[in-house]
Amino acid sequence: MSTPLAAPAETISKIGVAVFPGFELLDAFGPLEVLYNLSNAHKIDLYVVAATLDPVYSGTSNPRVNNSGSRFGVSVVPTHTHDSVPDLDVLLVPGGIGVIEETAKPTVEFVRKTYPKLKYLITACNGASIAARAGVLDGKRATTSKAVWNAATAVGPNVHWVKTARYVVDGNCWTSSGVSAGIDVTLAWIAKVYGEGLARFIANGMEYEWRDDPNWDPFAYIFAKGDVIDFNISA
Amino acid sequence: MSTPLAAPAETISKIGVAVFPGFELLDAFGPLEVLYNLSNAHKIDLYVVAATLDPVYSGTSNPRVNNSGSRFGVSVVPTHTHDSVPDLDVLLVPGGIGVIEETAKPTVEFVRKTYPKLKYLITACNGASIAARAGVLDGKRATTSKAVWNAATAVGPNVHWVKTARYVVDGNCWTSSGVSAGIDVTLAWIAKVYGEGLARFIANGMEYEWRDDPNWDPFAYIFAKGDVIDFNISA
Repeated sequence: MSTPLAAPAETISKIGVAVFPGFELLDAFGPLEVLYNLSNAHKIDLYVVAATLDPVYSGTSNPRVNNSGSRFGVSVVPTHTHDSVPDLDVLLVPGGIGVIEETAKPTVEFVRKTYPKLKYLITACNGASIAARAGVLDGKRATTSKAVWNAATAVGPNVHWVKTARYVVDGNCWTSSGVSAGIDVTLAWIAKVYGEGLARFIANGMEYEWRDDPNWDPFAYIFAKGDVIDFNISA
Repeated sequence: MSTPLAAPAETISKIGVAVFPGFELLDAFGPLEVLYNLSNAHKIDLYVVAATLDPVYSGTSNPRVNNSGSRFGVSVVPTHTHDSVPDLDVLLVPGGIGVIEETAKPTVEFVRKTYPKLKYLITACNGASIAARAGVLDGKRATTSKAVWNAATAVGPNVHWVKTARYVVDGNCWTSSGVSAGIDVTLAWIAKVYGEGLARFIANGMEYEWRDDPNWDPFAYIFAKGDVIDFNISA
């Protein structure tokens, strides 16, 4: 495999993903696909982090999204708990319907506790709501899902939410728009830390049409009329 | 949630995903994200199928892709074995480095055995190699990853491989190009069975730029010089 290898700007060796019941599959596994490809070129281990070591199920029975009684989810096995995981360099926080459930609260606390030790925080979709509730986006520019924009941003009154953006970088916080945008922000993060050559190599290998322009966002227009799904956290 | 609901062309109630060690994360979870959204509107259950009920790890130590000694993968919990799963309407077969390992053989046998009972087969990336080895693509048009094209197609000498294609539909076999293309083919499948309105609704909610044209394929050009990774199955 001939990879465009440049010396990274800094050493990244531990990447974690915070999972919770009802996490959105592509929010987690889009960025993790990108980072898996990165890990083939650079020594990086993945830590799957949750409240306990019990398998974490992505599906939901919440009628706000599940109107059919389907049982459609995948259970993933955590490698570490919030208490046992070593200090991470990068933490990925996915979104999903689970963000608004009681069961997301331990993840909010984990993000609050671990953020000061991180080099980078990456969020996908309304994973930004978790970061906002943890307070780590206060005073920063950030974005989130356009399909659940009102609900997702309501929990972060002190965040400078950017409505039209595929992703937003402020300091070490890399937040992205809905679901698929997690792939774009993760590629952009690789371009920053490892160089654009490796990011393009990975995007091509994934046959992914990388949107590297943070301002590209047709979905802000598509969802301009308001939220499609009621993700209100307080009700 | 206001979904554009049309009566589906037929009843789909059981969708399976065949996982094996070293499966590619986005090959599986891109299509499953799409189908999860479908399942919120129509009653469909997911079956995670493997050789045994032990967790299945997506990572690999195979030096053909892993040059760094990283441990970077996620373990998912099967719900059924190849023997215990009920008859499925749709089976999704992902690809990945694991396709070329000994441990993929039970999945090849499962696809061979279960295909006659399926309504649809969907493959992502070199998951088409598994279907080809099972013989179910013989005499059919199909496509697969452009980054590992030579190796992926070599195992299917009786398949009419289509090099420039985002996805190919022949009979009830829906094959797609590398990794991300699994999302496009799954949306196209939903458009066929449930109508384009629901497919577009799901793509927009995922903030995914759906490539619905099966002939759109810049990656055939990008990888025209041959395989990037040595995925030769016989060596």
